Amino acid sequence: MDFELLKTITAIPSTAGDEGKMRDYLVDYFAKNKKKFKSVPKVYSGNEFQDMVIVVFGKPRVAVFAHTDTVAFTVAYNKELMKIGNPKAKTGANLVGEDSKGEIKCTLHIPKSDKKKKGKDASEKFEYKFKRAIDPGTSLTYAPDFKETKNFVKSAYMDNRLGVWNAIQQAHTMENGALVFSTYEEHGGGGAQVAGKFLQDKYKVRQALISDVTLLSDYIKHKEGVAISMRDRGIPRQSYVRKVIALAKEHNIKFQLEVEKAGGSDGNSLQDSSYSWDWCFIGPPEDNYHQPGEKVFKDDIAEMVKLYEVLMEKL
Amino acid sequence: MDFELLKTITAIPSTAGDEGKMRDYLVDYFAKNKKKFKSVPKVYSGNEFQDMVIVVFGKPRVAVFAHTDTVAFTVAYNKELMKIGNPKAKTGANLVGEDSKGEIKCTLHIPKSDKKKKGKDASEKFEYKFKRAIDPGTSLTYAPDFKETKNFVKSAYMDNRLGVWNAIQQAHTMENGALVFSTYEEHGGGGAQVAGKFLQDKYKVRQALISDVTLLSDYIKHKEGVAISMRDRGIPRQSYVRKVIALAKEHNIKFQLEVEKAGGSDGNSLQDSSYSWDWCFIGPPEDNYHQPGEKVFKDDIAEMVKLYEVLMEKL
Amino acid sequence: MDFELLKTITAIPSTAGDEGKMRDYLVDYFAKNKKKFKSVPKVYSGNEFQDMVIVVFGKPRVAVFAHTDTVAFTVAYNKELMKIGNPKAKTGANLVGEDSKGEIKCTLHIPKSDKKKKGKDASEKFEYKFKRAIDPGTSLTYAPDFKETKNFVKSAYMDNRLGVWNAIQQAHTMENGALVFSTYEEHGGGGAQVAGKFLQDKYKVRQALISDVTLLSDYIKHKEGVAISMRDRGIPRQSYVRKVIALAKEHNIKFQLEVEKAGGSDGNSLQDSSYSWDWCFIGPPEDNYHQPGEKVFKDDIAEMVKLYEVLMEKL
Repeated sequence: MDFELLKTITAIPSTAGDEGKMRDYLVDYFAKNKKKFKSVPKVYSGNEFQDMVIVVFGKPRVAVFAHTDTVAFTVAYNKELMKIGNPKAKTGANLVGEDSKGEIKCTLHIPKSDKKKKGKDASEKFEYKFKRAIDPGTSLTYAPDFKETKNFVKSAYMDNRLGVWNAIQQAHTMENGALVFSTYEEHGGGGAQVAGKFLQDKYKVRQALISDVTLLSDYIKHKEGVAISMRDRGIPRQSYVRKVIALAKEHNIKFQLEVEKAGGSDGNSLQDSSYSWDWCFIGPPEDNYHQPGEKVFKDDIAEMVKLYEVLMEKL
Repeated sequence: MDFELLKTITAIPSTAGDEGKMRDYLVDYFAKNKKKFKSVPKVYSGNEFQDMVIVVFGKPRVAVFAHTDTVAFTVAYNKELMKIGNPKAKTGANLVGEDSKGEIKCTLHIPKSDKKKKGKDASEKFEYKFKRAIDPGTSLTYAPDFKETKNFVKSAYMDNRLGVWNAIQQAHTMENGALVFSTYEEHGGGGAQVAGKFLQDKYKVRQALISDVTLLSDYIKHKEGVAISMRDRGIPRQSYVRKVIALAKEHNIKFQLEVEKAGGSDGNSLQDSSYSWDWCFIGPPEDNYHQPGEKVFKDDIAEMVKLYEVLMEKL
Repeated sequence: MDFELLKTITAIPSTAGDEGKMRDYLVDYFAKNKKKFKSVPKVYSGNEFQDMVIVVFGKPRVAVFAHTDTVAFTVAYNKELMKIGNPKAKTGANLVGEDSKGEIKCTLHIPKSDKKKKGKDASEKFEYKFKRAIDPGTSLTYAPDFKETKNFVKSAYMDNRLGVWNAIQQAHTMENGALVFSTYEEHGGGGAQVAGKFLQDKYKVRQALISDVTLLSDYIKHKEGVAISMRDRGIPRQSYVRKVIALAKEHNIKFQLEVEKAGGSDGNSLQDSSYSWDWCFIGPPEDNYHQPGEKVFKDDIAEMVKLYEVLMEKL
């Protein structure tokens, strides 16, 4: 597996609500690589899709959803930061951005008194430390920190540039299928619904795979294969999930079964819509969730890529 | 009133996200009974509708929504259970299910230490007690416990097999109208939205009645008639609710008026959609809410059936 | 600026879910004034739109959303009141309404013991004080208290009759654009989604301005101009917000930039839908938020009206 592309895209700032740079990168990538794929896709982008990109190969039956937005912070007033999504970085984390006065390299500071009040988001407080005031409204993202070792890939924003990377791998092998590079997943959702409507209205696609990264837990571990999630906060139609599991077994994919009560994904956005979607979250686990240095085991990624290939063909 | 059908359907496992058995039962029921009805309905089911069934008589102006899913538990790891919806059963409750190793009859166990922390769902913990480990991802439902006495019907899953039963009663008497056997109501909603889109796109139906069971409270009691809900967490358009109340009065239905701030139903799913729906929740109260042995007064059920007959004709 | 119209509409009771009187007023207003406008609009109302009114001028590229519903209380049993939206009035506030026994002028009473438990909505309790029992299901709204001074306008329900008033000002000057008088904004949302679907299906409009009132804060103050919100609980597409800010600067509008983590508006309803909307919240700040006597600085209102004129033409 070649992770150069992954290194490139983990370094592109693209916070929820401001995914224009990832959109531009993807539109450019698909324009340049169109002819290398098994079948030539149609690429949909533009205002109608906000900052999303939808890529359709042949006659799609299944759509892969990979969100391009990330958690981060918005600068408010008096050094205060507002969360974009649910970032989990600690005091001292390196943040980067740009405002009217130029480039920004600063650090995150979490005031002590507020760290004790757990479970009370409203009282959380985040600040930046920098030599000058930053324009309110500026987004600050984790500084790029990509690192590849023998067994692991480690980088800020593996969630969800790894999901995006996996979707791009599929582009090279699939004959029929759709790729959705969605927006807003980390902050309230929304993009996936719009893409879902488009794909059902135009292509009658009703099956989705959520190409994303999950968390380590007591039961989901590195080196145990790609995780297939039976449920999280949302419960996908179980008959579809069982079909996915059966195909994974049949094709000797190394996988682990996730059964959770919390967490969500583009799958929830699809389910809460007026369009009926079967969906299943499939991705490897990571540690350092929503922090710099999210770390994933390489062989788990390999199983992810293999399983998606099987599913794009067989579902 | 004949409650044999109700007994049958309360025993069919059909948790939120896995309502296939109820779908099959209903498709079969309507195929067998089609010709006994006043007018021959169109029955919609299949992948486009996931596990829902939609039955349309004549030219519908009103749709009855009755959800077919129930609260229950999903088996996770190390004896832990994840809630499906919001089950309220106590330690010792009988649970049933099936996995790769065969049939399961076990009991619910709620560890003591966690029972104290009220209002904190995240810290709730549920376990099963069984002679062997159960496959993760298996659903466990309340064991069937249907019981009919002179005045009451008592059974797990009166919520919402009673609403389904009422919808089926209406099938026998209505000339114009739609029945929606919806999914996912207990766990985040979603099904009703899809059905709502279908009915508005195809039939221009904009009026809904939510056929479901409500809770006893200080002001809503057994033997006081069917409850018409003016509001719960959601507020339906009040001009529609006033029309329903006026018709109930005009036709001498025994009813009680519910005014609540909590609780939700398929009505909320309809209202949160991009389609405009007038809706009203109408159903009898029960005790033992979301536990085994949900108990409803027979005459309250009789008033429910009568009121729906009036409304399907007059709205 | 003439605030007679504002005085009139702040006195029209129109709670979330019961906006019929505002709908009737607006339909009447547009019928009477149609020919005074620069271009003759199409006015959409009726059951398909519930209690909303949509007014379309020429070929719209931008829609102004102004919600017509207000916070208030629903009478339940035993003097208890249920909140409609999130009213913040204090004990002694004057409430008015009407039920089967006639007109009601009463006061709000918040029992002492419950005032301490902050942050726990479930335990909040509200009661009315009146000489007789009020019919359950009756809505009670703040008594009209409009007052204009040299620099301020002060009235219950500036939120959001001021946004409605601003939309009506635009009707007199715009050539192309849509006005949405939406419902349910204060209680769960819903109306804006329906209007959004209509405008996209029929007119391909994808740009929205949310005409509403915001809160004073440490950084948002009276006399600093109209507030343009970069984000609240929701994050609108930032490229659109930046375009709005650039136009405000270019046209010398006095404005202040809001960067918040809480609060929502019709913008959130649009974003949570299956239709892609760019949206931006623009309105002056007020004090006494969701209480009687909401107070707004006149010159901030003037800047609001000017900015909307610019945006309706230039976006």
